[in-house]
Amino acid sequence: MDLGLLQSLIQPGRSRIVLCSLDGLGGLPRPETGKSELETARIPNLHALAGRSACGLIRHVGPGITPGSGPGHLGLFGYDPLRYPVGRGVLEALGIDFELRPGDVAARGNFCTVDGQGRIADRRAGRLPTEVCVRLCERLRQVRLEGVELLIEPVKEHRFVLVLRGDGLSGRLSETDPQALGVPPLPVRALAPEAERAAALVNRFVEAARPLLADEAPANMLLLRGFDQKPDLPRFPEIFGLRAAAIAAYPMYRGLARLVGMEVLTTGDSFADEVATLRRQWSGYDFFFLHYKDTDKAGEDGDFEGKVRALEAFDAALPEILALGPDVLVVSGDHASPSVLKGHGWQPVPALVWSAYCGADPVSRFTERDCAAGTLGLLPAHDLMPVVLANALRLAKYGA
Amino acid sequence: MDLGLLQSLIQPGRSRIVLCSLDGLGGLPRPETGKSELETARIPNLHALAGRSACGLIRHVGPGITPGSGPGHLGLFGYDPLRYPVGRGVLEALGIDFELRPGDVAARGNFCTVDGQGRIADRRAGRLPTEVCVRLCERLRQVRLEGVELLIEPVKEHRFVLVLRGDGLSGRLSETDPQALGVPPLPVRALAPEAERAAALVNRFVEAARPLLADEAPANMLLLRGFDQKPDLPRFPEIFGLRAAAIAAYPMYRGLARLVGMEVLTTGDSFADEVATLRRQWSGYDFFFLHYKDTDKAGEDGDFEGKVRALEAFDAALPEILALGPDVLVVSGDHASPSVLKGHGWQPVPALVWSAYCGADPVSRFTERDCAAGTLGLLPAHDLMPVVLANALRLAKYGA
Repeated sequence: MDLGLLQSLIQPGRSRIVLCSLDGLGGLPRPETGKSELETARIPNLHALAGRSACGLIRHVGPGITPGSGPGHLGLFGYDPLRYPVGRGVLEALGIDFELRPGDVAARGNFCTVDGQGRIADRRAGRLPTEVCVRLCERLRQVRLEGVELLIEPVKEHRFVLVLRGDGLSGRLSETDPQALGVPPLPVRALAPEAERAAALVNRFVEAARPLLADEAPANMLLLRGFDQKPDLPRFPEIFGLRAAAIAAYPMYRGLARLVGMEVLTTGDSFADEVATLRRQWSGYDFFFLHYKDTDKAGEDGDFEGKVRALEAFDAALPEILALGPDVLVVSGDHASPSVLKGHGWQPVPALVWSAYCGADPVSRFTERDCAAGTLGLLPAHDLMPVVLANALRLAKYGA
Repeated sequence: MDLGLLQSLIQPGRSRIVLCSLDGLGGLPRPETGKSELETARIPNLHALAGRSACGLIRHVGPGITPGSGPGHLGLFGYDPLRYPVGRGVLEALGIDFELRPGDVAARGNFCTVDGQGRIADRRAGRLPTEVCVRLCERLRQVRLEGVELLIEPVKEHRFVLVLRGDGLSGRLSETDPQALGVPPLPVRALAPEAERAAALVNRFVEAARPLLADEAPANMLLLRGFDQKPDLPRFPEIFGLRAAAIAAYPMYRGLARLVGMEVLTTGDSFADEVATLRRQWSGYDFFFLHYKDTDKAGEDGDFEGKVRALEAFDAALPEILALGPDVLVVSGDHASPSVLKGHGWQPVPALVWSAYCGADPVSRFTERDCAAGTLGLLPAHDLMPVVLANALRLAKYGA
């Protein structure tokens, strides 16, 4: 659905919408039992809600495509992730709560190991301890280049973020990481004429960094990837006419919400904190994006039982959310994280939309298998928002 | 499906197709019973036919989008309503059986109330009795403008249609209705250079109408909206290679059928009249669009029982239609009109396609919930026509 068309149909209203994103929600059957995490978990509240909801499966990017957290959440927020790409450097910055400004160019950095001839021997410098990464980032901050501000922030292990801030920069830059061993890092090239200046600046930065790292083996060099600028996304509150708030304990999801213009609410570290924040802020907004991380963490660790427990913990919190009396409640996720895959998966993700007008549906269990028979069908994730808005009675009729 | 590609595959044939459009067919469960209108109605013939048909759910515009009758029927006729928009003024003219000519500019008119300073006090003039509307339209016909013919037709209550007929007109005009109270009507502006002349003419019409209405409070002024010209749609009989006839007791649906080039058959006021017309004209056409209005009327009135009765009445007429021996029979609708919503809804609409070649399908009841499991899937409405043509053996193979 074209966002401009959607915006033209938006009606004011007083309805309140809660979008629960269970990170990495979808799973796969465990060979021993033939049952997925959702099919194994005791989630009576989710099953009961599915029985009263329109259910379906959502696909965030395309068939067979495994979404990262960025495209996965953009899809949930109503943006086609193929139409609104977000660079990896930008996502890395969002992931550490770094507030990118318009025009900033961000890149993912890796500390790496090079041999005496400057050829890459380990692209991740032996997965450096994070403390070393912090110290090396501090050292790199000595580098000064005329006409541009350099911001260097540690992420985790060998990873850091480099941000160039200044006028007239562009992120249309090639990567220095050759993605191979035994060859030296590549110089950055401008991929568009307007990026010549940024390319020269990055190459000067790398040359200035080289001597500062020379004695720090295994982290005696760096690689830069995923250069990009903050995308100019249509703003969620304006397109959808919603006072929108994000509640997320993890920085990446706060960053993604901020990227589309949601207000990010201060909350604590646990999901209980998030639900408390939701309750406290209930009257101030008409859309809440509520993020639940534990499902993904367990899935990525390959911890089937842990993911089952995470689903059960969310299920136990669901009555508290329902008790607030939302007009529309959505439960879905940004991608699958099947425990048997130990990572993100391409499988479509269960979704339910509950409202007084969500409609009849044969589904009465919130599982991958059951949701396939729902009236939402197999839906691109970015088509979920129009359905949600319709259920909130926020969309006018198209044509007379 | 691209209409040009479809046209290139069309094969001649002698098969006969009936498309039954049950207006506002889809519904929602009533909270007391958890059952929708279709699930409540006794419709043995429809259920039996569903058991022998390919079933599914169709969506006319996009997920979450509530279709008006215009886009809803264009979808059923095989046209993507987002690609072939029809302006509101045109639909209003179609709704009173007004035969728009190419180049005519049509607008929806409202009589409204203005205060002593010319500021709008009531956008609908207290929903004027239709007789008054008729009389005021007659009075407005006194207005004469050089170089253009003005046609003014009452619709219902405060509503009328204004048509400008002449050379070199354009419908790219802004509206005079500010959609707000306490402000005066707006002058019309040209939204494209070619519309300057039409804008000037409309403004002169409004100025000439003002004194004629001055003493007619509450209908002492008028508002104009939805200016548009008859769209130049690909013609249904030519694209699909079908001698196509429309049978509809209500003018709006005759108008929509005429817009795509179907022949409109004379019929009576009731569905029994329509079926009699179908029988009488059976040998003359190979495609019939048969419109059934009662389902929508009851749904829009919030009359659940009335909609159930309307479904049962259609069901009772179904054997007569089947007895004519169509090669392909389609039953679906232009949009949902759930009684609980008292208006059009965004929910996907059940559809069945019966033919000797329609295929196996697990669905044996014609309801929203059951059709979700059909082999047609969740289909854009404009993708139904290719399926119908295929079932009529009217489409050649694509590629060797």
